[in-house]
Amino acid sequence: MDINQLKKAAADEAAKFVEDGMMLGLGTGSTVFYLVEAVAKRVREENLHITTVSTSSRTAKQASDLGIKVIDINDAPPLDLTIDGADEIDEHFQGIKGGGAAHLLEKIVAINSKRNIWIVDQSKMVKTLGAFPLPLEVIPFGSEKVYQRLTAENLHPEFRLTEDGQRVRTHNKNFVIDLHVGTIEHPHILADWLDHQTGIVEHGLFLDLVNQVVIGKESGVEIINAPR
Amino acid sequence: MDINQLKKAAADEAAKFVEDGMMLGLGTGSTVFYLVEAVAKRVREENLHITTVSTSSRTAKQASDLGIKVIDINDAPPLDLTIDGADEIDEHFQGIKGGGAAHLLEKIVAINSKRNIWIVDQSKMVKTLGAFPLPLEVIPFGSEKVYQRLTAENLHPEFRLTEDGQRVRTHNKNFVIDLHVGTIEHPHILADWLDHQTGIVEHGLFLDLVNQVVIGKESGVEIINAPR
Repeated sequence: MDINQLKKAAADEAAKFVEDGMMLGLGTGSTVFYLVEAVAKRVREENLHITTVSTSSRTAKQASDLGIKVIDINDAPPLDLTIDGADEIDEHFQGIKGGGAAHLLEKIVAINSKRNIWIVDQSKMVKTLGAFPLPLEVIPFGSEKVYQRLTAENLHPEFRLTEDGQRVRTHNKNFVIDLHVGTIEHPHILADWLDHQTGIVEHGLFLDLVNQVVIGKESGVEIINAPR
Repeated sequence: MDINQLKKAAADEAAKFVEDGMMLGLGTGSTVFYLVEAVAKRVREENLHITTVSTSSRTAKQASDLGIKVIDINDAPPLDLTIDGADEIDEHFQGIKGGGAAHLLEKIVAINSKRNIWIVDQSKMVKTLGAFPLPLEVIPFGSEKVYQRLTAENLHPEFRLTEDGQRVRTHNKNFVIDLHVGTIEHPHILADWLDHQTGIVEHGLFLDLVNQVVIGKESGVEIINAPR
């Protein structure tokens, strides 16, 4: 089975958690692409009335084109559920997100949601976070100083570049710095330190946020409840 | 004496701290306007060689027009000294900045500076912070949710508006929310909480940062050394 089949299987399963009348958050990325298709199919076939907010213009357009109602988060009531992907999930259900440079908007939607489900293929499940580089969204003004501070703290920063060698810009026109830490033994301690750094808008550690993980595996789809 | 004379007197005095060869940070605002004039006069008359970085395009243009060398902070070595204004300074030398909506860039320059001097008129010196509304720079996406969270924490938020009723936008196109707290009894505790809020890019509490305060008073200019 290729990885896209695993992603699609997980997305199809996660779409079953959507209920009529829900205010739903939709994330970003390749797995969410399959999710939006599956949700749209349910909306159509079961005549569900749901409203969504999205963490990217791409997901918003896809949902809207498929007939799903999309509104601005600033106009939305509290979200009942958000379904998003993740780049790594450890055995304590802590996650890294931001491989798509959208972790700021994704975190804003996640923390405003009563429940969060992450859909992943099995390769994203790890014992300890950190093999996946940790993304930071950074204000361009003074970003070289942030880079130097991160280097001095042995966090192995790298500015993320586009294919043609330009610095990646986020939705808010900021830079992305990835931390190649290797192993993040103490995610809360690292998150706390990063939260205090002026010039870092948001980091990709999503801690104590997810309630359920839906995993596409060779052997089938597994749903695990986080202890929260 | 009107307040502008007090500001100018303080700025003239602070300009004396500039030394030949310095890498200098220049802040933002009406008092800094006088400072740049005074520094330019010294550069001209004493043939000083200094290089500056600035926290606003307005200050950068003023300095550049007056013959002061201005470079980008990302190209600068560590700053020897930054001179900036402040909106409030308490008896422990903690400050509030951001009345000009530039506190993000001002803090980035301040924390990258070996020494910081603030120049103010006497009206800015207070026993306890908080009569001046505390500015926050906030990501527009989800800003209504941030506003609700701040309201729930009894922090009395207000979106800052322009004269024609539009929301103020910062240099980075973010919104400004002012907290009308009245009295900030525990600035470090408030700063720590704000640092952890997703969607708040930076707050205007400048704690443990200033080394000297230059105060324009009716009775003359007073220079106070902070105990750091």
